[in-house]
Amino acid sequence: MSMEKLVNAVRRKGPVCVGLDTQLSFLPEYLKAKDWSDGEKIFEFNRAIIDATEDEAACFKLQIAFYEALGLDGMAAFSKTLRYARGRGNVTITDAKRGDISSTAEQYAKAHFSGDFETDVMTINVFMGEDAVSPYYPYLAKDKGVFALVKTSNPSGKDFQDLRIDDETLYERTARKVSEWGERFLGESGFSAIGAVAGLTYPEEFERIRPLLPHTFLLIPGYGAQGGTGKDIAGFFQGGVRGVVNSSRGLITAHKGKTESEDFVKYVRQAVLDMKKDILQWL
Amino acid sequence: MSMEKLVNAVRRKGPVCVGLDTQLSFLPEYLKAKDWSDGEKIFEFNRAIIDATEDEAACFKLQIAFYEALGLDGMAAFSKTLRYARGRGNVTITDAKRGDISSTAEQYAKAHFSGDFETDVMTINVFMGEDAVSPYYPYLAKDKGVFALVKTSNPSGKDFQDLRIDDETLYERTARKVSEWGERFLGESGFSAIGAVAGLTYPEEFERIRPLLPHTFLLIPGYGAQGGTGKDIAGFFQGGVRGVVNSSRGLITAHKGKTESEDFVKYVRQAVLDMKKDILQWL
Repeated sequence: MSMEKLVNAVRRKGPVCVGLDTQLSFLPEYLKAKDWSDGEKIFEFNRAIIDATEDEAACFKLQIAFYEALGLDGMAAFSKTLRYARGRGNVTITDAKRGDISSTAEQYAKAHFSGDFETDVMTINVFMGEDAVSPYYPYLAKDKGVFALVKTSNPSGKDFQDLRIDDETLYERTARKVSEWGERFLGESGFSAIGAVAGLTYPEEFERIRPLLPHTFLLIPGYGAQGGTGKDIAGFFQGGVRGVVNSSRGLITAHKGKTESEDFVKYVRQAVLDMKKDILQWL
Repeated sequence: MSMEKLVNAVRRKGPVCVGLDTQLSFLPEYLKAKDWSDGEKIFEFNRAIIDATEDEAACFKLQIAFYEALGLDGMAAFSKTLRYARGRGNVTITDAKRGDISSTAEQYAKAHFSGDFETDVMTINVFMGEDAVSPYYPYLAKDKGVFALVKTSNPSGKDFQDLRIDDETLYERTARKVSEWGERFLGESGFSAIGAVAGLTYPEEFERIRPLLPHTFLLIPGYGAQGGTGKDIAGFFQGGVRGVVNSSRGLITAHKGKTESEDFVKYVRQAVLDMKKDILQWL
């Protein structure tokens, strides 16, 4: 089952996911100055970061919006980055939060689990219910995984996710559904191929979600730029690491104000090491 | 304000939206046989349909998943189709159901309201709350619009959308929020730049949503292949057309089993005319 690659990478390299939410403004001057397309510059930035951090990072997460925003050139950079990272044996997560009716979800599964945009794990939005999730199942039975949105890290997440249904919140109900769907896809690690996204910005909520997700591996956004700290997830990880913590801006802009040349990756690498230490000290 | 283009097109040409959820299997043999890339064939199919139906169709909706599934070649076809349709003065809807935190939503807004993938209106998922919607506001104040998911047309939509919160369902709560957010963006037509997606497959629910959406223009999926009929929306449209009804497979596969040559568009055109008649007879 398909979350295994990621679970194994976390066990081997620790729980840090490097978010490649790359924007042109993040690039050091030596790259900005190249006579290349924007997409080519972004790929080169990503490539350098992958090379410099892959021994310490469990995975690389690409937020597709940052590539879509650059049009076809951006989508080419997206494709090249995924191929490069995976070609070197790294685990990739495509953060696309797709959610649609079954005939459309089939196309999204095909789009992101094969061909130009092939990734290992993708994020999905389950607001449309199980038939928006089941088209991914054939891939989950093989070597792919999904992370379903349960509780997001943004302030307005509460607009709907915190609403009460009977004696629980919508996010708790979502967590229970996601766990139930995932029972069919348990891997050797004990974790399901259906994981969950649970934001780090509301640590007290981790405690409420934990018992609802006994076999669910987590993708935890919100670390760093969004305000989360290693201590916030310590409680959740008691009894062993059961998720991967993503940081994007906090890592890939670590060089800003320090260098504008090729050595930018050493600052990014140091930020990855610091984040790893910050999380692991509490375990 | 930005829903005006679409509202005006519906008033002028009727409430039919042609869904270009194009798959290779839909193409007539004469196109399949061309020595072109898959994306080029799909663009040519779309182009022929746009030419043959643009005088009767209010808009063209592209479900982006079908293009993503073909990788970079598919995304090029997506871009070309949008440019072609808009270049001829048609209104386009990108059905992408994007929903993400504000810094990411900014990128999605940029991706779909400018550049290679520029469209007039796009669908969004509001499960993450208002800060996942507000990044679109600057575009809504100009000439763009969004349709927020309120009630989807798939059977599992009920998994979450029908859950009860106090004395209403989640989709009713969502409808009220969407209406409230939209008040800032009312156009001359009386409709807001923030519209709503409300599936046609559950007509009794239209009656419950209607009073909650006084100034909200609707995108209504579920007609045809998904089981909805013109009669189902008659109640909703009492007092005037206040939405656009999408059909994809029901229209763009109308030629299947009848022809494999260039004249395929006459069947598609007839299907558009039939659908329009089916809806308008009840008004």
